[in-house]
Amino acid sequence: MTKPRDPQRPAKKAVERSTLPPLREAKWRTALTCIEPNKILMRGYPLDEIMGRLTFGESIYLLLMGDVPSPAIGSLMEAILVSFIDHGITPPSTLAARNTATTGAPLRACVAAGVLGFGRYHGGDIESCMQFLDSGLELVRRGTSYQDAAAVIVARCQELGEPIPGFGHRFHTRDPRAARLFQMALELEVEGNHVQMIRAVEMVVGALPDGHALPVNIDGAIAAVCGDIGIPPEIANALFIISRVPGITAQAQEERQREHPMRQIDPKDHVYDGAAQRRLPDKRR
Amino acid sequence: MTKPRDPQRPAKKAVERSTLPPLREAKWRTALTCIEPNKILMRGYPLDEIMGRLTFGESIYLLLMGDVPSPAIGSLMEAILVSFIDHGITPPSTLAARNTATTGAPLRACVAAGVLGFGRYHGGDIESCMQFLDSGLELVRRGTSYQDAAAVIVARCQELGEPIPGFGHRFHTRDPRAARLFQMALELEVEGNHVQMIRAVEMVVGALPDGHALPVNIDGAIAAVCGDIGIPPEIANALFIISRVPGITAQAQEERQREHPMRQIDPKDHVYDGAAQRRLPDKRR
Amino acid sequence: MTKPRDPQRPAKKAVERSTLPPLREAKWRTALTCIEPNKILMRGYPLDEIMGRLTFGESIYLLLMGDVPSPAIGSLMEAILVSFIDHGITPPSTLAARNTATTGAPLRACVAAGVLGFGRYHGGDIESCMQFLDSGLELVRRGTSYQDAAAVIVARCQELGEPIPGFGHRFHTRDPRAARLFQMALELEVEGNHVQMIRAVEMVVGALPDGHALPVNIDGAIAAVCGDIGIPPEIANALFIISRVPGITAQAQEERQREHPMRQIDPKDHVYDGAAQRRLPDKRR
Amino acid sequence: MTKPRDPQRPAKKAVERSTLPPLREAKWRTALTCIEPNKILMRGYPLDEIMGRLTFGESIYLLLMGDVPSPAIGSLMEAILVSFIDHGITPPSTLAARNTATTGAPLRACVAAGVLGFGRYHGGDIESCMQFLDSGLELVRRGTSYQDAAAVIVARCQELGEPIPGFGHRFHTRDPRAARLFQMALELEVEGNHVQMIRAVEMVVGALPDGHALPVNIDGAIAAVCGDIGIPPEIANALFIISRVPGITAQAQEERQREHPMRQIDPKDHVYDGAAQRRLPDKRR
Repeated sequence: MTKPRDPQRPAKKAVERSTLPPLREAKWRTALTCIEPNKILMRGYPLDEIMGRLTFGESIYLLLMGDVPSPAIGSLMEAILVSFIDHGITPPSTLAARNTATTGAPLRACVAAGVLGFGRYHGGDIESCMQFLDSGLELVRRGTSYQDAAAVIVARCQELGEPIPGFGHRFHTRDPRAARLFQMALELEVEGNHVQMIRAVEMVVGALPDGHALPVNIDGAIAAVCGDIGIPPEIANALFIISRVPGITAQAQEERQREHPMRQIDPKDHVYDGAAQRRLPDKRR
Repeated sequence: MTKPRDPQRPAKKAVERSTLPPLREAKWRTALTCIEPNKILMRGYPLDEIMGRLTFGESIYLLLMGDVPSPAIGSLMEAILVSFIDHGITPPSTLAARNTATTGAPLRACVAAGVLGFGRYHGGDIESCMQFLDSGLELVRRGTSYQDAAAVIVARCQELGEPIPGFGHRFHTRDPRAARLFQMALELEVEGNHVQMIRAVEMVVGALPDGHALPVNIDGAIAAVCGDIGIPPEIANALFIISRVPGITAQAQEERQREHPMRQIDPKDHVYDGAAQRRLPDKRR
Repeated sequence: MTKPRDPQRPAKKAVERSTLPPLREAKWRTALTCIEPNKILMRGYPLDEIMGRLTFGESIYLLLMGDVPSPAIGSLMEAILVSFIDHGITPPSTLAARNTATTGAPLRACVAAGVLGFGRYHGGDIESCMQFLDSGLELVRRGTSYQDAAAVIVARCQELGEPIPGFGHRFHTRDPRAARLFQMALELEVEGNHVQMIRAVEMVVGALPDGHALPVNIDGAIAAVCGDIGIPPEIANALFIISRVPGITAQAQEERQREHPMRQIDPKDHVYDGAAQRRLPDKRR
Repeated sequence: MTKPRDPQRPAKKAVERSTLPPLREAKWRTALTCIEPNKILMRGYPLDEIMGRLTFGESIYLLLMGDVPSPAIGSLMEAILVSFIDHGITPPSTLAARNTATTGAPLRACVAAGVLGFGRYHGGDIESCMQFLDSGLELVRRGTSYQDAAAVIVARCQELGEPIPGFGHRFHTRDPRAARLFQMALELEVEGNHVQMIRAVEMVVGALPDGHALPVNIDGAIAAVCGDIGIPPEIANALFIISRVPGITAQAQEERQREHPMRQIDPKDHVYDGAAQRRLPDKRR
């Protein structure tokens, strides 16, 4: 995000306005959606023409980035959005939504409570990983090799006692979503220097004493792929929020339907009783 | 949603528990997503297998409804989600998100504030329209014609001085999204008695003195189509929340990027400066 | 709250507007606080004059009700606000706030998540209890005795299988806050027919088979006292929100300070390690 | 707030736990409120004893700080809380709450949306002003005079192009609340080095070219007074949230009662129609 203007300096703005035509207040502007009677244009395209022609995932890209994605980027967008759609009952954001649901609050209140839990330690890693990879690529542009650049930026984190952005997971020692996303980026031929950078970091981290317990996680994979397909950090951040909303909604809905109200929710005290592991229908493979 | 159990009657539950094996507390259950080390199963399918094989829209259906949608229902899901994705700067939920953004709040706080604005008068119409159509279909099941049933349920609204759910719009006299959704339902051959019912209501409403100003709106179209493809009211309600989150996110993001902080946001005082009207690329038609 | 106007009838409004002076749009109005350069009037009183002369509790009454409270009503306002200020870590709203805090979210996001948990089953009982007592008082106005009226309205709840509003508590068999509030209302001589009504209901409930487990709770006591001092249900509802915000804030703050981030919060797995029971300083008694 | 522990290092914690007695999971701890059957102890005091003996403002101090305030500090707490209680319809947080209210959302959703608008540019100034004053006092401790220290820290802000924390207001050139709070701190004899520091900054700022337009605002006054009575920045931040909730609640309630739903709220298009300016009753002066 560009740095907002200083709110304490209205003087300059008043001067700017004095050059406008008289009797006309400057209007504020939006470039997203144009509403006229019986017409809705999103980024210039009639919304009713988009319906049935672009998927929801492609439309999200269009809305946030301003243009229809290429087929390859569209496929990656879908995969990124799907990868985060739900992670069971354990994320604190999901528990905030369920604790709100158990009070009898309406669904939208539960979803809002869940979204508020996308804090610094939960989902916020994508943006910091993009900055982390960019700091490595800056070194590469100045002539350092990927491997050396990776060693430098990992060492910086360790000196500051900070976690390495995009690495490590509370539950997984190998994040299946990250592996799949890298594979797709390779097959769709959109891999670029961000993926190359995170691969170099992966090797450096793997050689650390505890490195085997710090796999590339889905935040890291998304950060690298978003970097390579030109999605800026603040949009990647927006994608995380959008992608997890269905999961939070479904979890809150399940709480409302299956449990009695005002219960004490212990996250460790649950069991999965849904469908057993199965394969997608043939046509979908 | 099933009616929650009475929170004032713990006695019965205690009795039920006494039949459980000793030393084991009853666990609570979830059927959505199973998390094991290095494995994430959503509704039984490995999430990494879903990535690249189902779209985000199809995955949302899978998560909420429990099964992979048929191609026809999948296409309608995408269209329903796209239809609500954004409606410019005028919805109060969007203005709540922008007013939050102008204070310098993080993106997730803006999104949460926007989601809270999906109140009774904004988005809540889908659920009430589904109940309205069902009350007409109940009469049809008892032998009344669609036309007579429509006249009865419209008259009920008028006697109570209540608006007719799914009809009328603040800006549009013909909602292009509703027309497109009905067309898709027809082409995909999923039209059923709910669409027939809303068509009958449309004729009754059109014959009212001010009826020409009350077109079927997108809430009504979604209510009818969801009814015909077996999506229950509470899930249709969830779809509305999910579908508008990208729009709220994009609007809050634009506020943060283009405007100075702590401004006074007048919704009537804006102008659209985005892409001019254009057609989708040939391949997407 | 007065019923909102029907949003589907703009026609009448357009006609009304045509009688306004030309070229002037009707302005919308507020009666709460007047802001002029270097002057802030709340309900007509300069805010800087209120500072140091009215307490926060009295100022809340002034803001919501429009006038400075009498000393007796001011004292009850403080007691009502204090009675709800915190209830430990177990309310789901508090757990929603703590689950948000553990993600690293800012304090205001945690507070918002907590406030969203004041749902139908948590805090919402004040408003329904006021309606419940009013339904009994309606019978009294028509000549029924308090005792008979109480029996009638309790029987209605039982027939519908609904809990009796204002009675029963998850933890307490005698709510010390309710007892204290009734005592204060008596001493301050503001007891009226709502307290008399809830006392009659208390006797009827106490004679039920399980009635000893259903004491008057703090929601019931506040409902009765608010009814007697002229606070309408929607303002009583607002008082609940205001009164619990400090508790939610303190709980979220403690979570941020004492616990490590992204932990799994089990409400049953905690212990109190604060100050031992003590008496207020002599001057405060 | 203390820096949260690194979420990527569970190893150390596991080691710590191994020293605990076997078969006992470590419990998490809270020092705020102890709940036992029929007993509620807040910071050690029975809540029913607090009712009627401490005001809501004093109870907030007790809950957040752990002890009953002295009479002087109690009076300042009330004044601080009152000073922020409402600021008319113009703050973006208030407009977020009103935009949520106009959708028909319940009161608690409106309050949550408003609280989310206490962003970096709105209310967040108290914490940064406390840090700003502390950086000046650090220089004073090393031997610099107050006047020179003030000049240094103001110059730092100007070099960075940042606003001076605690100075300037969108509407007021002299903030009446700030003046009153300083007067009370003087009369109650709690003035200390933070007030002395902000007074020195005020003189430096007043001598700047545009300095007359940058008065000490209420954020600055609260920051200085909180510093002098020992309230840490994170608690001062909490006080701001708590103090404005009544205003947001009242504004949302007024929107629900006086306006029709789904209206377009233009903040510049309103008029005050409440009580004319008046004096407090004699007994309250």
